[in-house]
Amino acid sequence: MKTLIRVGLVGVTGYTGVELLRLLAGHPRMTLTRATSRNEAGKRIEDIHPAFLGTNVGGLVISEPEPKDLAGACDLVFLAVPHVTAMEIGADLVDAGLKVVDLSADFRLRDPAVYEEWYKHPHARPAHLAEAVYGLPELYAKAIKKARLVANPGCYPTAAILGLMPALKNRLASSQGIVIDAKSGTSGAGRGLKAANLFCEVADSFKAYGLGAHRHTPEIEQELSALARKTVRLSFNPHLVPMSRGILETIYTTLKKDLSAEDIHAAYKAAYDHHPWVRVLPLGRLPETRFVRGTLFCDIGLVKDARTDRLIIVCAIDNLCRGASGQAMVNANLMTGLSPDAGIPAAPMSL
Amino acid sequence: MKTLIRVGLVGVTGYTGVELLRLLAGHPRMTLTRATSRNEAGKRIEDIHPAFLGTNVGGLVISEPEPKDLAGACDLVFLAVPHVTAMEIGADLVDAGLKVVDLSADFRLRDPAVYEEWYKHPHARPAHLAEAVYGLPELYAKAIKKARLVANPGCYPTAAILGLMPALKNRLASSQGIVIDAKSGTSGAGRGLKAANLFCEVADSFKAYGLGAHRHTPEIEQELSALARKTVRLSFNPHLVPMSRGILETIYTTLKKDLSAEDIHAAYKAAYDHHPWVRVLPLGRLPETRFVRGTLFCDIGLVKDARTDRLIIVCAIDNLCRGASGQAMVNANLMTGLSPDAGIPAAPMSL
Amino acid sequence: MKTLIRVGLVGVTGYTGVELLRLLAGHPRMTLTRATSRNEAGKRIEDIHPAFLGTNVGGLVISEPEPKDLAGACDLVFLAVPHVTAMEIGADLVDAGLKVVDLSADFRLRDPAVYEEWYKHPHARPAHLAEAVYGLPELYAKAIKKARLVANPGCYPTAAILGLMPALKNRLASSQGIVIDAKSGTSGAGRGLKAANLFCEVADSFKAYGLGAHRHTPEIEQELSALARKTVRLSFNPHLVPMSRGILETIYTTLKKDLSAEDIHAAYKAAYDHHPWVRVLPLGRLPETRFVRGTLFCDIGLVKDARTDRLIIVCAIDNLCRGASGQAMVNANLMTGLSPDAGIPAAPMSL
Amino acid sequence: MKTLIRVGLVGVTGYTGVELLRLLAGHPRMTLTRATSRNEAGKRIEDIHPAFLGTNVGGLVISEPEPKDLAGACDLVFLAVPHVTAMEIGADLVDAGLKVVDLSADFRLRDPAVYEEWYKHPHARPAHLAEAVYGLPELYAKAIKKARLVANPGCYPTAAILGLMPALKNRLASSQGIVIDAKSGTSGAGRGLKAANLFCEVADSFKAYGLGAHRHTPEIEQELSALARKTVRLSFNPHLVPMSRGILETIYTTLKKDLSAEDIHAAYKAAYDHHPWVRVLPLGRLPETRFVRGTLFCDIGLVKDARTDRLIIVCAIDNLCRGASGQAMVNANLMTGLSPDAGIPAAPMSL
Repeated sequence: MKTLIRVGLVGVTGYTGVELLRLLAGHPRMTLTRATSRNEAGKRIEDIHPAFLGTNVGGLVISEPEPKDLAGACDLVFLAVPHVTAMEIGADLVDAGLKVVDLSADFRLRDPAVYEEWYKHPHARPAHLAEAVYGLPELYAKAIKKARLVANPGCYPTAAILGLMPALKNRLASSQGIVIDAKSGTSGAGRGLKAANLFCEVADSFKAYGLGAHRHTPEIEQELSALARKTVRLSFNPHLVPMSRGILETIYTTLKKDLSAEDIHAAYKAAYDHHPWVRVLPLGRLPETRFVRGTLFCDIGLVKDARTDRLIIVCAIDNLCRGASGQAMVNANLMTGLSPDAGIPAAPMSL
Repeated sequence: MKTLIRVGLVGVTGYTGVELLRLLAGHPRMTLTRATSRNEAGKRIEDIHPAFLGTNVGGLVISEPEPKDLAGACDLVFLAVPHVTAMEIGADLVDAGLKVVDLSADFRLRDPAVYEEWYKHPHARPAHLAEAVYGLPELYAKAIKKARLVANPGCYPTAAILGLMPALKNRLASSQGIVIDAKSGTSGAGRGLKAANLFCEVADSFKAYGLGAHRHTPEIEQELSALARKTVRLSFNPHLVPMSRGILETIYTTLKKDLSAEDIHAAYKAAYDHHPWVRVLPLGRLPETRFVRGTLFCDIGLVKDARTDRLIIVCAIDNLCRGASGQAMVNANLMTGLSPDAGIPAAPMSL
Repeated sequence: MKTLIRVGLVGVTGYTGVELLRLLAGHPRMTLTRATSRNEAGKRIEDIHPAFLGTNVGGLVISEPEPKDLAGACDLVFLAVPHVTAMEIGADLVDAGLKVVDLSADFRLRDPAVYEEWYKHPHARPAHLAEAVYGLPELYAKAIKKARLVANPGCYPTAAILGLMPALKNRLASSQGIVIDAKSGTSGAGRGLKAANLFCEVADSFKAYGLGAHRHTPEIEQELSALARKTVRLSFNPHLVPMSRGILETIYTTLKKDLSAEDIHAAYKAAYDHHPWVRVLPLGRLPETRFVRGTLFCDIGLVKDARTDRLIIVCAIDNLCRGASGQAMVNANLMTGLSPDAGIPAAPMSL
Repeated sequence: MKTLIRVGLVGVTGYTGVELLRLLAGHPRMTLTRATSRNEAGKRIEDIHPAFLGTNVGGLVISEPEPKDLAGACDLVFLAVPHVTAMEIGADLVDAGLKVVDLSADFRLRDPAVYEEWYKHPHARPAHLAEAVYGLPELYAKAIKKARLVANPGCYPTAAILGLMPALKNRLASSQGIVIDAKSGTSGAGRGLKAANLFCEVADSFKAYGLGAHRHTPEIEQELSALARKTVRLSFNPHLVPMSRGILETIYTTLKKDLSAEDIHAAYKAAYDHHPWVRVLPLGRLPETRFVRGTLFCDIGLVKDARTDRLIIVCAIDNLCRGASGQAMVNANLMTGLSPDAGIPAAPMSL
């Protein structure tokens, strides 16, 4: 029998923590040895999350997040705590010799000044920031394998970058004037106790929020600028959908030359030929978030709007799985030498 | 006691028919004398729509749609039948001396060639088309009052035109390069028995459809071109939201000059000063579809995205009420000399 | 022009407050002169409830709940505050000469000992309790018209009592062994900031709560015992439905004698002959909560389960309208000499 | 490498078919060699179910359901077709030497007369009926392992039987007078194109249907009578919940003797001690369907209603997984000598 990788989960109460538990409960090569929460320490996981009663993670007693304890008990730690909190403990755990996958935004923006501008907090661990690898497997798998600290991408950026990568890398579309109209399920808003997250205020309604001002904007621009090899400044605009899971982004770009829909489609197929989680749909098909629910899949639909010379790219992911915990699991698999898809569901729960 | 206007409803089975029944049941000055359906003739309304049991419209026996019969029994008729069907009966009813509000697309596009291009059917009644008035009260109230035939606007166009009117009329934003990202509740898809409309295929999911190719595109362009006094060609892109009612459109435009958010807001407030159903929200606020549910309100939020020199306009309406039957009722009120808001709910059912 | 009744709303932030605002905004004979909230005093209603922007209630500035001020400005006050809080202010307002409709549970249970047993708080105003009238119009309209203080029924009791009244009064079913399996939309849980009320914890899920122990039990038993003229003790069991509005109760009783379904149905029709809001459905039909949405209707379906000698009664109401604010409005109408249906929607918003 | 079991899926278009595909796509020891549909033959699975694009089942070309072809290509076949259809093909496939798991009702009722009474169709294959094993693993695992033909239990009966088994076997509650109030998500209604299944007719609403007359009644009574060793006749009453997946049943029984809640709980814990999928919740806890979503878990909550001497049992399962396809997979695992939990998700997707 093969040795199990010992993993810790710092931050077990929120939705990304719950999604990590779901994946860990079925993971063939990892064992959860620590789960932490300052508020819930002393209880078992199944006490606060009845879904895990009787699973192999449910009986674990939640502990306080202490770096020494984690360093002794784990090989790798997932951080599912808010930004700023993650920064300190993440750096400490790396220093203690652990591999760390941070699901917060703290190690995603390479330039500490940009971090401070958008997150209104100075970056306290710039050396670790410099070392961190951006954990988008389709772009950085090689570096992730060797990394001690992986900055797990944001949910919106995951879809945006995968959706635009072939267009910008192959100069199919202009890198200027891009508009991303993004729609997310409510789990993306987290488990915070705000009236705006109550069932009756979300159900049967739809709204926009943070137009032009969402913190995922610089993260998207950073990665797209690298792909386009020039500065990309775009308009990113999120909306809230009355559903639990799923992100769909409709991305409006200007075609650079007179390309046929078939040309564009072929370029996308080629770009993702060896990346099985990115499914470039046949022309004429468009993604639905339910078709990626619970998986790593990123479904991409392509439309050439000939009337306005636009390439419209539609991307769908599961915000909790591909956009957070599932992608974190892939990163952990890569960092520990496992198969990237270990513990990842093979097919969506499409209804 | 004042005389009641006698109205007929041609097409009582679909969702816009049901919404008209809701408004008619509470209307102080109209009485429903005919409701027609080829499939359900002979049943009472309350037999096929249990919601109306015991209301003043529930006991009416559904009849076949016969122009002569309608002409004798009604002063005004609402057409809530599919396009092409509406064209013939609408024209016949006008010829028989009735006032007609057509909720289909048949009399909206002034140019019959454009109609044929998008609806794949020649327009059989061009003279009536020439006579028809586009029933958007904020733009055409005077003409509606005198009209015999009103083409009730499409749901998406209602929001798009109201959202863009002040910007284009006052040349705040460019009339070129506009992108409308529209999201609609599922009642907009009608009551057709398709797998795509089943609860399990809609709930907890989100998708795009008809990108760049929706039939409401020429209707929006027709009205915006008139407002801008130049040809507007734009990219209109609808999506389906797992909710029953509501449309929210996020409209991306390019600012023409260096206007402050306050300048733009003031121009919008001025434009809708005497139009109480259009609520221009304070800066910093954005619409939610639940705040307009069941009403004529069109809520408009305005965002200046200074990073990309864009004006982003967010409009919310109730697709069934403002986007169809409620607006039809306002048109009928205007055509029959009633107060425009007769029978219109004063406040939304926001939860 | 007729004089308007001046009304106050104590507790403007919660869901029953919002529903009262919806009805008041369209009420032809009432004007809202005060709306109170300790937390939101100084803001306008439309600042905290954007749904009411531009309506005739939206601009009212929220004030502190002061009895003297209310007594000067109002003829009648609705109390939409939690129990215990309502008790004191309700009694004080009555003493100050106001008519009061209390939506809390504080004046519903005639026996102060029963109140204390279930609400864990002694009743501080027994004299007012003795005076209060239970505000179920089908049972107590006469007394309501003369009352100074009306205890508006609970949502679950409204459906339970209306559903069982004909059966118990006419001794069709045994008054013993009754089981009520009740299902409510989430607005019934109020606007409290609890994880259990978050969209992601309610959507696409179903649960029971408070089985055999809900505080509406003694209220139901009190009224049913009066109708049956003997002590009724029953099992009342609520559940939470992933929807915003609506209650459906499935009530299991034992038939007393060999009655046909038609006999039972006739008895129910007769019982509600002069009560237009109670709609006894034709045999073979069952209620759906959407058919009563936003109205006073109570829909009753009847099934004789011949295999087990049971009469199954299914009742549907809108928990916010018939189960709270709409019924409160009817009570206020009766207390002030208006038509009982003034300001009450004529037909449901069934989609 | 171990040999893969070759399986066929007869009926690939419906919701139970889709759920089987989800489980097969991740199954470590089975390979899907045939998927059939008369209407869709010739297309690939991923053409009609985009969710499976790029999975190991997506590329399979759908074929006509021909017994010879299936017999040559498969070791075991799942039947996910309607009753009556399943009867013939199921018997033929068994005769052709295949193992068969039938998800329809055709082989569940041991007495052909009962089948004919409830399904209005004579049973054409009584010999196969006599041979079939009722596929509830907690009761019949031994027989299932040797069976050629397994009748996969109905969704409602699975929850009802598991919920009542300890109470009836241990005579904690009376076998008479039981009432089951059952609530199901909409996937239980199947993929039929009926107005009643449309999103707008299900969402934000709740209804009862088939009270006292649902076809699962005799199936429940058959198994409970065997457990109680006396004839059980009960009242079974289903309802429809606006959610996709999940069943919750609230079961009302009369306690036989003066048992404490702790006694009852201990008896249930003991009964399911060696059955890990049945999770008897701690006293004070009640199930929610989301906590079992996508799994085999059956969660049971127990309440003693001392006021009315009742034991109330609350059971939650996932109707598609435990109530249909997941249980079918367990049966297939048992029949082919695999571990019962092969391919079964370890933890729920609780949000």
